[in-house]
Amino acid sequence: MRNFEIYNPTYFVFGRDTQGRTGELVKRFGGSKVLIHYGGGSVVRSGLLRQVEESLDAAGIAHVSLGGVQPNPRSGLVYEGIDICKREGIDFLLGIGGGSAIDSAKAIAAGAVFDGDFWDIWMGEAPYANALPLGCVLTLPATGTEGSNSSVITNEKLHLKRGSSSDFNRPRFAILNPELTYTLPAWHTACGVADIMAHIIERYFTNTPDVDVSDRLCESVLQTVIKYAPVCLHEPDNYEARAAVMWAGTLAHNGQLGVGRQEDWSSHQMGHELSALYDSTHGATLSVLIPHWLRYCLPGHEMREAQFAVRVFDCEMDFEHPERTALEGIERLSAFWKSLGLPLTFAELGAKEEDIPLMAKKCKRNYGTHTGAFRPLLEEDVAAIYHMCCEK
Amino acid sequence: MRNFEIYNPTYFVFGRDTQGRTGELVKRFGGSKVLIHYGGGSVVRSGLLRQVEESLDAAGIAHVSLGGVQPNPRSGLVYEGIDICKREGIDFLLGIGGGSAIDSAKAIAAGAVFDGDFWDIWMGEAPYANALPLGCVLTLPATGTEGSNSSVITNEKLHLKRGSSSDFNRPRFAILNPELTYTLPAWHTACGVADIMAHIIERYFTNTPDVDVSDRLCESVLQTVIKYAPVCLHEPDNYEARAAVMWAGTLAHNGQLGVGRQEDWSSHQMGHELSALYDSTHGATLSVLIPHWLRYCLPGHEMREAQFAVRVFDCEMDFEHPERTALEGIERLSAFWKSLGLPLTFAELGAKEEDIPLMAKKCKRNYGTHTGAFRPLLEEDVAAIYHMCCEK
Repeated sequence: MRNFEIYNPTYFVFGRDTQGRTGELVKRFGGSKVLIHYGGGSVVRSGLLRQVEESLDAAGIAHVSLGGVQPNPRSGLVYEGIDICKREGIDFLLGIGGGSAIDSAKAIAAGAVFDGDFWDIWMGEAPYANALPLGCVLTLPATGTEGSNSSVITNEKLHLKRGSSSDFNRPRFAILNPELTYTLPAWHTACGVADIMAHIIERYFTNTPDVDVSDRLCESVLQTVIKYAPVCLHEPDNYEARAAVMWAGTLAHNGQLGVGRQEDWSSHQMGHELSALYDSTHGATLSVLIPHWLRYCLPGHEMREAQFAVRVFDCEMDFEHPERTALEGIERLSAFWKSLGLPLTFAELGAKEEDIPLMAKKCKRNYGTHTGAFRPLLEEDVAAIYHMCCEK
Repeated sequence: MRNFEIYNPTYFVFGRDTQGRTGELVKRFGGSKVLIHYGGGSVVRSGLLRQVEESLDAAGIAHVSLGGVQPNPRSGLVYEGIDICKREGIDFLLGIGGGSAIDSAKAIAAGAVFDGDFWDIWMGEAPYANALPLGCVLTLPATGTEGSNSSVITNEKLHLKRGSSSDFNRPRFAILNPELTYTLPAWHTACGVADIMAHIIERYFTNTPDVDVSDRLCESVLQTVIKYAPVCLHEPDNYEARAAVMWAGTLAHNGQLGVGRQEDWSSHQMGHELSALYDSTHGATLSVLIPHWLRYCLPGHEMREAQFAVRVFDCEMDFEHPERTALEGIERLSAFWKSLGLPLTFAELGAKEEDIPLMAKKCKRNYGTHTGAFRPLLEEDVAAIYHMCCEK
């Protein structure tokens, strides 16, 4: 186990009807004038925005709103939010929605107290030294941003997508009401599940020895998701299934499943190139890539992949041929994702074989000579994995 | 799953040589003049106190020291610490040691900024509205106080032992270096392990349905402890084993394993009466009580106890007689604790059968008509469990 540091200061309020606690929580964490930041119409149509506003009103907290966040949130709206904060004297950000709305709110919180251009912080070219406090009301379990230190923003003018990781990005509070996820379309539910599982998988496959504690925690959260994700699709208003997946999404990405170990993240990186070129949904790029990545990494990693197969997918261990057990686990992972309606191939994703050289090159440019750590991938390895995604 | 709230704001720094970070962390969390609070000679003899002082010196942080904390920390020393804080203008508490030193530091931190008597807060008779910030350097994995909101103090004049639970008790940072536990005697290591496992067991056995996520997390941490505790005893300086148990101790009691469920805590409560009467080590009271408590609770709880047996102790499920599986799990738990040198009976603990009526009565007086929740225990149930501990 490596030395590690972990910090999770977010106050989580989880359960039915918890959005009515928003005003009280903003007050507790020092807010008096809030910018409510959200995406499209569903937050309005469902009545959630109104409930949150009523809760703020009841707590005597002033508020202004800025909607319109898109998937892969854009810097343009972030700048607009920063202007509002400075003009209106906003002292607290409130993100309502999924990862996009909350990530966008995090960037606004940073820019609102920064004299320069927030994008320089996201590019790693200016220090991240302060931010307005921020809370969130989550409606889509997937990115884990409600408990994480990260925020990913796309600069639509520069065609760049960049993430910032800083404790200033950690929400002061997060409200998680599983009931708010009942109306999620099946596709978004499934893509969220793939993202949650990927956050665990990117941590689980490591060469760091003696990480038994976090191995078992990873397996636990994966087993929970595997048990309940199909229930979410077949009974969209099953509270217990929605609750299990929602809390699993937070646990998957608040950092504790990766303590003391080298993490990988190559599948996320390869997936970002697919999203950049085809605007593919993040979770869908992961369901295509991860099984092929696991097959590509198998030589030399038979025992760890067999452990995954046995402990997560209940495969029987083949002690004579552990690689067969590992492959059986990958098959079960693919079959599980397919059962949720997720794609497994470039064809299903609408990605094209001829773009592979370009994507592999961009991957190298963005992440350095080696992508990932479990098996450090050169440009040709990345290309080979993309090619595997074109088969059958 | 029930609605829940969870808050874990402690910044954890885990690993080798991390005590050298103390000064930097005190500074980060706003301390400029520290009261270092510790127990007996081992912190001095091992050189840890000197290392911490050097780290504070290097960071330019003033400090005074107060040693002498005893197991079951006393209010007398707390009052002494409060006087020092007020007299010296202390603005940060630093607890070094196991649960006793850190719990005592928490009480001093509360009393230092309270006009009245800190004991009134611990008795629940005065509001807990503020405390000095506090950090800790842990040397004994057991109570989980390094990441918890609780502190238990004994008032030696009033013969009362009382716990306070408040977010003000949460350390700002906790330094966990497994190397610092190499020199722990086998008995303290084993009692710490029993306490860690008990913190999980008290949460695991619940009647709240649909708590799969936290069930599996509980099982994971228990499995880790069961794997590594014997290694800690046989190879006291095995870093990986000490690291696994140390981190498990924090995870067991920072609240996340109990989210969304009714917890029990009757074994802790029955154990406190044993400690009060015979000054028994806390962990040793738990290894005696828990197996008998599980046997007493079995009727009506066969399936949950069988789940524990199958998932934690790898028992084979007897689908026709799940109670046999449950009993097999209890046997394995007892055998495991016995293998660590822990007691299983009143005789080994030095407890007397004739004191049972008194202890059962005190349990009722201290915790109300019903002790616990998994099977709410009346005074006669508590007595019956104590009697079971006298058998064989």
